Amino acid sequence: MSSINSERSQLIDHLIGQLKLSSTRGILFHQTLADFLGLNITDHKCLGFLLEEGPQTAGKLAELTGLTTGAVTGVIDRLEKAGYVNREKDPHDRRRVMIAPAMDSQARMGKLFLSLYESSVQMSSQYTDQELNVILRFITESSQMMLQETDKLKQLIETKPSE
Amino acid sequence: MSSINSERSQLIDHLIGQLKLSSTRGILFHQTLADFLGLNITDHKCLGFLLEEGPQTAGKLAELTGLTTGAVTGVIDRLEKAGYVNREKDPHDRRRVMIAPAMDSQARMGKLFLSLYESSVQMSSQYTDQELNVILRFITESSQMMLQETDKLKQLIETKPSE
Repeated sequence: MSSINSERSQLIDHLIGQLKLSSTRGILFHQTLADFLGLNITDHKCLGFLLEEGPQTAGKLAELTGLTTGAVTGVIDRLEKAGYVNREKDPHDRRRVMIAPAMDSQARMGKLFLSLYESSVQMSSQYTDQELNVILRFITESSQMMLQETDKLKQLIETKPSE
Repeated sequence: MSSINSERSQLIDHLIGQLKLSSTRGILFHQTLADFLGLNITDHKCLGFLLEEGPQTAGKLAELTGLTTGAVTGVIDRLEKAGYVNREKDPHDRRRVMIAPAMDSQARMGKLFLSLYESSVQMSSQYTDQELNVILRFITESSQMMLQETDKLKQLIETKPSE
């Protein structure tokens, strides 16, 4: 391998190392928050989805998160018990049950995320528009890739139920 | 606000939205993996730390992850019971106990991360060196920020023990 290719491959490895570290620290942030809220990390991320996207059926929530419908039922049960969501009949179709965030959920969560949001804005503001567009493209692609990798992982797990 | 500033602020908001989505999807990937391994997501991330950084004392592991020493003890207990780590005496200081990954942990975990690693390399390869350096700087700063925000969150939680 030429030294140019080797430098480039080091750059990519360095980036992947930082992505992993960043993912770990993100998870530890959310774990700290989930511990405080008395939820597990997945419950609390599902609540985040509902706060952003509005009321959803359990099926749609499973689809959005990639969790099984069984796992989603458990998440909703815990969130409902803790007072963060309610099961409500869809006014347009009374046979359909929607999972809706409780009225004060946004305010309770918002306070805990305020500092992270402000720091994110401040950090991003130090980049040019051109740089931000590159970063946005990369993050969007990463996020799409993560979804595909989760699907691949599920297939791998299903075909090899024991290790 | 001028339209230029408004466009820029939309760009930043869009980026922050994608960062959140990417974080959620990363968490769901790790949750899927942790479920399969019979661990919780924090256990499995701590194991990742040990595989990358080598054996650590429980105190150092708490420092690296930002978890309390009590929480770290629980993590180590679960990982040891599941056969992923061993408590070993430090050969250089017999009074010191090191937490070491079990011999086959790397291989067992590596297989599950292989596809994610390969996809990350492939995705990164589509960017120029200059773009990769911008992305690397942003991810490194984000990761540092997450650590600071976790500390701030802990302080907020400690000063307001009930919601």
